[in-house]
Amino acid sequence: MKSQTSFFDISTHGKSLYEITLEVEHCVQAAGIHEGVATVFVRHTSASLVIFENADPSATQDLLRYFEKLVPEDDLGYVHTLEGPDDMTSHIRMVLSRTSEVIPVSRGRLVLGTWQGIYLFEHRRAPHKRQIAVNVTGF
Amino acid sequence: MKSQTSFFDISTHGKSLYEITLEVEHCVQAAGIHEGVATVFVRHTSASLVIFENADPSATQDLLRYFEKLVPEDDLGYVHTLEGPDDMTSHIRMVLSRTSEVIPVSRGRLVLGTWQGIYLFEHRRAPHKRQIAVNVTGF
Amino acid sequence: MKSQTSFFDISTHGKSLYEITLEVEHCVQAAGIHEGVATVFVRHTSASLVIFENADPSATQDLLRYFEKLVPEDDLGYVHTLEGPDDMTSHIRMVLSRTSEVIPVSRGRLVLGTWQGIYLFEHRRAPHKRQIAVNVTGF
Repeated sequence: MKSQTSFFDISTHGKSLYEITLEVEHCVQAAGIHEGVATVFVRHTSASLVIFENADPSATQDLLRYFEKLVPEDDLGYVHTLEGPDDMTSHIRMVLSRTSEVIPVSRGRLVLGTWQGIYLFEHRRAPHKRQIAVNVTGF
Repeated sequence: MKSQTSFFDISTHGKSLYEITLEVEHCVQAAGIHEGVATVFVRHTSASLVIFENADPSATQDLLRYFEKLVPEDDLGYVHTLEGPDDMTSHIRMVLSRTSEVIPVSRGRLVLGTWQGIYLFEHRRAPHKRQIAVNVTGF
Repeated sequence: MKSQTSFFDISTHGKSLYEITLEVEHCVQAAGIHEGVATVFVRHTSASLVIFENADPSATQDLLRYFEKLVPEDDLGYVHTLEGPDDMTSHIRMVLSRTSEVIPVSRGRLVLGTWQGIYLFEHRRAPHKRQIAVNVTGF
């Protein structure tokens, strides 16, 4: 049994999903673990994680449109707006998605289903560098 | 210390919550782990997991009605509709709930509270077979 | 490698975020683990967990206002209202946030980002005592 945490950065350029499945798989392989669990964690409060459909780009576009409607920038009297109209909405969208995704590892592979990809969900308009931590624990 | 991943299937027949607490407890017992963590993971992007109130069926009905209103099938101009009006709504409802639930194990039991059950949250109308992975890591 | 689960209580006095970062860090230190994963789990269905911005109280106030609007007490024909108008809304708000937060541990510390705090998200008006379980697995 062992446990190893590694880190990588993702550069974002506006609100979107950025796939990180390959980076996470690489962390699992680098840890040399065959059976265990991978914990993916985003170290920010204005970006989040989701496991999402990985085949059709229209699903991503529909998701982004839905979140613009669910957490509108111009609809509420937000007080926390120091960094602009996408400041508070980013924190709320993060709460409504996830800060960590935890995926079992079996036979050296993440047990993702056929259509599942791991994505960073960026909620800010401006470019950002986001740091992801990946712990792999097992044997 | 050990880590073991097992799989089981759940047959669904329409949008609803399907309790899987007993199946998860069985995986913990089969792994023979007394102290550790259980990770429950659904391998699909149109079904999700929730830990939810396990006593009153009216709570489940209210939750289902709320999600119909929060993510309506007829309200947005979804593009991703190849599999019908419940296609894109399923992906969104999955994002708003969870793909994995992680529960500590102590003295050989999941540390669930009195009113907590683990549920598969099915978002599609048509019958589906859903696969759940459960990793148990500990000693 | 080892795995240890501990428990602590938090007294709440109405709907709000209650920071528990220090309590979780204490559990990590008490377990004496340098590399691994911490799983924080709330044993209730009318309170939840979030990792949230820890610097500006206005962000918390905006989040609370947003949830009052997203899951209104007076808007839907809830059936599950035995414990009052904040009964069913509490279960829904829990589904839309999280029952567990999983955070890698490296060099003996939670790998939280600069602005991330761990919070109990209380959804009931009346005072409650909430129990949190924290498992730490690693070496």
